[in-house]
Amino acid sequence: MNNQITLRQKTVVISADSREEREETLAIEVPYTIALNDEKIGASMVLATGLEEFGAGFLFGQGYITKPGQVREVLVCPEGRISVHADVEEGSEPKEVIVTSGCGGTGKISKEMLEGAFDPLNECSISLDEVSQFIREMLQQSPLGPLTHCIHGCGLWADGRLQGFYEDVGRHNAVDKIIGAILMGKIPATGAVYTTGRLTSDMVLKCARIGIPIVLSRTSPSSLGLAIARRAGVTLAGYARPGRLNVFNAPERIIC
Amino acid sequence: MNNQITLRQKTVVISADSREEREETLAIEVPYTIALNDEKIGASMVLATGLEEFGAGFLFGQGYITKPGQVREVLVCPEGRISVHADVEEGSEPKEVIVTSGCGGTGKISKEMLEGAFDPLNECSISLDEVSQFIREMLQQSPLGPLTHCIHGCGLWADGRLQGFYEDVGRHNAVDKIIGAILMGKIPATGAVYTTGRLTSDMVLKCARIGIPIVLSRTSPSSLGLAIARRAGVTLAGYARPGRLNVFNAPERIIC
Repeated sequence: MNNQITLRQKTVVISADSREEREETLAIEVPYTIALNDEKIGASMVLATGLEEFGAGFLFGQGYITKPGQVREVLVCPEGRISVHADVEEGSEPKEVIVTSGCGGTGKISKEMLEGAFDPLNECSISLDEVSQFIREMLQQSPLGPLTHCIHGCGLWADGRLQGFYEDVGRHNAVDKIIGAILMGKIPATGAVYTTGRLTSDMVLKCARIGIPIVLSRTSPSSLGLAIARRAGVTLAGYARPGRLNVFNAPERIIC
Repeated sequence: MNNQITLRQKTVVISADSREEREETLAIEVPYTIALNDEKIGASMVLATGLEEFGAGFLFGQGYITKPGQVREVLVCPEGRISVHADVEEGSEPKEVIVTSGCGGTGKISKEMLEGAFDPLNECSISLDEVSQFIREMLQQSPLGPLTHCIHGCGLWADGRLQGFYEDVGRHNAVDKIIGAILMGKIPATGAVYTTGRLTSDMVLKCARIGIPIVLSRTSPSSLGLAIARRAGVTLAGYARPGRLNVFNAPERIIC
């Protein structure tokens, strides 16, 4: 498999006084097909890292996989195919899907999921110091973000440490990789998720469905992202920086 | 129709020393179904502005509508449905779709479109002064962007002036609205498009397919966005600011 995820590209910087050659770093997006039990479900443009997790998380986002323990095996083929084998119920596919807004790969949620009830979250709290450390560690692990301006990061913090961190060209995909890691038993389904992307409906929905009680973003939620957080009881915070965050719902899980 | 596109929301800003109440402005995303000749094609989360244009542009992005002159009528129903009536060929639906990366609503392109040939672009050039004026006018028309941190803008500049400008929670949707305005004969299919979002594959693909020769972004292209620009001959520039832009392909259309 070609694991190259960036490429260098000559560009011309044009300003009033000059035309100057420069090199920029670009994120490589590649198409991958996702199959569940040998049946093709969809295809997505991705950054070719954490592809096993992505495959599992993609199928969770679409409503096929619903909980940890269902994924048996994930195979990534060099030709651009992620084959997930999982114990899912017959007829688990979503009935009516909505293409979602915002910067992300999967971009589809079912109407059912949007309107249904939520199971209780896997309760926990986080201190402001932990939030600061979480964000700092994520920034350290993500040199590609500021270099390419084309990559979103998503991490999970639980039990006092950064449990997992993934990147993608889409903010949805980066969250899917975290969700996939939970489904595959690599990281726990509790704690706080931090994303560099906006918290639109489907971003919050995925976290709420898997039981994550705290969802943080470098930037803002949308109205529907907030509405879902309220319904599910998720702590939702935006504009999160080391030492500061702006809580839109359930601030009691942020302790000082 | 409820035309409210933002709402005010009380939040709690938590920092080391204080918990302070504040009000933030959120972008409202709402689900809309898009139908072509009374057949439902898809549904998308959108910012409820320029919905007629969005409907037409969405169907172009998905490959159903292919050129200006095909759209006969677009009706927006308050219940969340955009009905496009258009003269399209039988069997115009895409064969194999790929869910795309990046911040946007439609997020699907056909494999066919990704690999097919392009018609010649509607040739033009733009001066650096015009680029500067273009960006400044767009910023003036977009108070919601910096206010909500959740809205992307997309504009079209041709014949020395800003021809159209749209906003959405998704960068794809904002481009779709511009494309829709072209399809509906409101703005010309030439000049320069400027987007606040990243130039991933489908963003560049839509512009190239409709014949736009110059595509500018506040931020960066992805590898595949650049590859499509090269194949189609589109001028692709990132990190565009008044007085400066970084050209990744075909700089000859930027004149000083």
